[in-house]
Amino acid sequence: MDKDDFGLRHLSMLSDFYELTMANGYFENGMDGQTAYFDMFFRKVPDGGGFVIAAGLQQIVEYLQNLSFTEDDIDFLRSKAIFSESFLEYLRDFEFKCDVWAVPEGTPVFPYEPLITVNGPVIQAQFIETMLLLIINHQSLIATKTNRIVRAASGRAVVEFGSRRAHGSDASLYGARAAFIGGAAATSCTLADQKFGIPAAGTMAHSWVQLFDSELEAFKTYARIYPKSCVLLVDTYNVMKSGIPNAIKTANEELLPKGFRLKGIRIDSGDLSYLSKQARKALDDAGLSDCKIMVSSSLDEDIIRELILQDSPIDSFGVGERLITAKSDPVFGGVYKLCAVEKDGHLLPRIKVSNNVEKITNPGFKKVFRLYSNDSRKALADVITLFDEAIDASEPYEIFDPLFPWKKSTLENFHAKELLVRIFDKGRLVYELPSMDEIRTHAASMADTLWPELKRFENPHQYYVSLSRKLWNLKDSLIREHSQK
Amino acid sequence: MDKDDFGLRHLSMLSDFYELTMANGYFENGMDGQTAYFDMFFRKVPDGGGFVIAAGLQQIVEYLQNLSFTEDDIDFLRSKAIFSESFLEYLRDFEFKCDVWAVPEGTPVFPYEPLITVNGPVIQAQFIETMLLLIINHQSLIATKTNRIVRAASGRAVVEFGSRRAHGSDASLYGARAAFIGGAAATSCTLADQKFGIPAAGTMAHSWVQLFDSELEAFKTYARIYPKSCVLLVDTYNVMKSGIPNAIKTANEELLPKGFRLKGIRIDSGDLSYLSKQARKALDDAGLSDCKIMVSSSLDEDIIRELILQDSPIDSFGVGERLITAKSDPVFGGVYKLCAVEKDGHLLPRIKVSNNVEKITNPGFKKVFRLYSNDSRKALADVITLFDEAIDASEPYEIFDPLFPWKKSTLENFHAKELLVRIFDKGRLVYELPSMDEIRTHAASMADTLWPELKRFENPHQYYVSLSRKLWNLKDSLIREHSQK
Repeated sequence: MDKDDFGLRHLSMLSDFYELTMANGYFENGMDGQTAYFDMFFRKVPDGGGFVIAAGLQQIVEYLQNLSFTEDDIDFLRSKAIFSESFLEYLRDFEFKCDVWAVPEGTPVFPYEPLITVNGPVIQAQFIETMLLLIINHQSLIATKTNRIVRAASGRAVVEFGSRRAHGSDASLYGARAAFIGGAAATSCTLADQKFGIPAAGTMAHSWVQLFDSELEAFKTYARIYPKSCVLLVDTYNVMKSGIPNAIKTANEELLPKGFRLKGIRIDSGDLSYLSKQARKALDDAGLSDCKIMVSSSLDEDIIRELILQDSPIDSFGVGERLITAKSDPVFGGVYKLCAVEKDGHLLPRIKVSNNVEKITNPGFKKVFRLYSNDSRKALADVITLFDEAIDASEPYEIFDPLFPWKKSTLENFHAKELLVRIFDKGRLVYELPSMDEIRTHAASMADTLWPELKRFENPHQYYVSLSRKLWNLKDSLIREHSQK
Repeated sequence: MDKDDFGLRHLSMLSDFYELTMANGYFENGMDGQTAYFDMFFRKVPDGGGFVIAAGLQQIVEYLQNLSFTEDDIDFLRSKAIFSESFLEYLRDFEFKCDVWAVPEGTPVFPYEPLITVNGPVIQAQFIETMLLLIINHQSLIATKTNRIVRAASGRAVVEFGSRRAHGSDASLYGARAAFIGGAAATSCTLADQKFGIPAAGTMAHSWVQLFDSELEAFKTYARIYPKSCVLLVDTYNVMKSGIPNAIKTANEELLPKGFRLKGIRIDSGDLSYLSKQARKALDDAGLSDCKIMVSSSLDEDIIRELILQDSPIDSFGVGERLITAKSDPVFGGVYKLCAVEKDGHLLPRIKVSNNVEKITNPGFKKVFRLYSNDSRKALADVITLFDEAIDASEPYEIFDPLFPWKKSTLENFHAKELLVRIFDKGRLVYELPSMDEIRTHAASMADTLWPELKRFENPHQYYVSLSRKLWNLKDSLIREHSQK
């Protein structure tokens, strides 16, 4: 486990204020013993993509393990003069007691299926809403966006360069973490290397070049100090008139350690397709065919696809602001909804109805199965079921569109795997957090189970997320019940 | 000063890796004594707006005051096998020694003018680039976006509700801080209240309503517990058929404390214009004309303007995801550029040339004056000058467009104020950090000095940022020098 100090930061008060007023309200109303079930899910894949990559679970675990309230917190809340002393006492002795199920990080996930399910005392299960959403929404957004960029780069390395444009220091650090899960090869963020072992990389800034009396002197000095990892930024003055000629001179400099090879050049402005071709030719002509070309400059998946379509001889991409802010679609709309309560020992499903049918929630305590073809090993569909259900893979299984249930299909010759794993058992961590490398490998191997049609950028195939017949019937009866009110 | 613990977090390693490799390079090349000058500025106002509101200085101060390297940091860097032991020794004894000038938080600022100027040992002045940019870029983005939303709301309160969709926990906390500077009245983020005194506010979630056997019971319970601040969420089932009638019943409930008044209702979905009108009428008819109407649901400045244009009787807006991510334009492109070096006791200006004239930097150690009309007290123009210049307001002053210098104008009857203030003197803090309320008041009073034409949403007036004749001549000569190379 690559443990960072997220849990050691005291973030218990990073909660919407209404979580606290509701908690106090439940407490005051004698409902602190009430058990409630919540699902975290999303309704829309960012950028109209085919799938989302779940990320952020490790930080949620660390947050939950350290959830507590200090005397300062209690005093602050008391100063609001709306919280009862007995509630503040409850917070002072707070101990997290919920059950938590979650989809492991790196798993491709789809709209409407629970990524996290929490059950426990309603005060607790409700209170953690803000941080759960904030963490999953952020990291899943960046992992998903990065994966688009990595797919566009078709095997060339993508290095995350976004720290300076991230929305605060966490967005930089955990954005780098999520980008790695999504497939980035490295990051510019040193802290992400120190904390998570994500390789930190970088070249030089224009200021390095400007600080010397000449570009050539700047290059030679850098080559002398970093003979094994010398990547030169060639666009401070003029790429083809100055940067590339000086890079070639540096590569041929006799005073450098024997065996010195110029590892690469970076172009950070201008027409990257034209310049990369010109630079490649000049480098090849100078016998530097092993010198790599990296480009950067407000890149995203669209620009990278264009560059590759134009046969630009680019070896790696530094992608900054548009990755780290998910510029094209920066809101990941995960929500956290009540789905059941326990009353007198019975589990009572709850639904949120809406005139917008897509906003009607799936009631009850649920789980999710992913059905894989035994032949292709590809994922065929996900099925959301009630918690006491199983899927018998020895029989044909009918899936259907939950909104248009006459759209059906029958699956055969498949096997089913549960998607959510148990993370906390009544507040006790029962899940071994995987390492970053394990998460990244899991993400890559899970992505291999997706049909290529799901990975298209425009109008990808819509993956099937079905409900079990039993869950559909329950939902249908609750909707009818509410519409009769 | 509202001190938070930002400086106490150890974020020294949140730096682009190339800052460290360059620092080691300067050190190894015997340039650790070299003094360099850097400017932080931006080139484009987000969303095509007329101005940016500078924010984030307090966190920069706290970061710089606590900049140091632990043994863990040193060990980590050593493990990279590219840093010299003497450089690591330098880091171990690191002491921040730079001069820093900055624009106070809340000040409206414009493209190309320095918001921060740093000078000192090049290793230090370069190293802090990542955090300086990250903090200013983030908070200025959110303050500026919020100010657009607040302007659209035309005097109605805007409450920042974005935590759950923020890009990590810092984006929530410091986003709430920046939103307050930009004019938000309150935040949903409890931590922002605890740390910065920004009023935390909130109503209830749908889950509160769902958890009770009926909406009416949920409302009455809430009213009983929070008789003085009872705002009811009325859209869990159906606003006009259920939510509003139950809110009215609650307002008239006899068992509540004497003098109970329903403070407000919140509508979180549906046609907010239609529903707010219907709700207003129903509430007024029930004698509840003092009951306020709050709306939320993916709001931004455009939707709010439409709602107001349609005379929607809305008293306040809860604005979440589109504010906290600055969805319409989530990248604030502040940069940090070398502008001068000291050599043999002389200050040598440095320029970054580019085929794109807008990307050519302003050379030299500079300051910025804002010129105000003595009659209207409005800001007329900013002038960037070299550091040893003054502006004599007793004489007519000619300003011009730095890109098209034949576009000129002569100002008379004005007074000039310097925009940047000294924050650190050779690493010693010499600036008294204002309180959040002082910053917010400063922002509001500075905004009053801007012509209304600058505050338009579409095609605002372009504010004049001129160069002094001396600076323009210097820039021109450096460009000519470079183009002759």
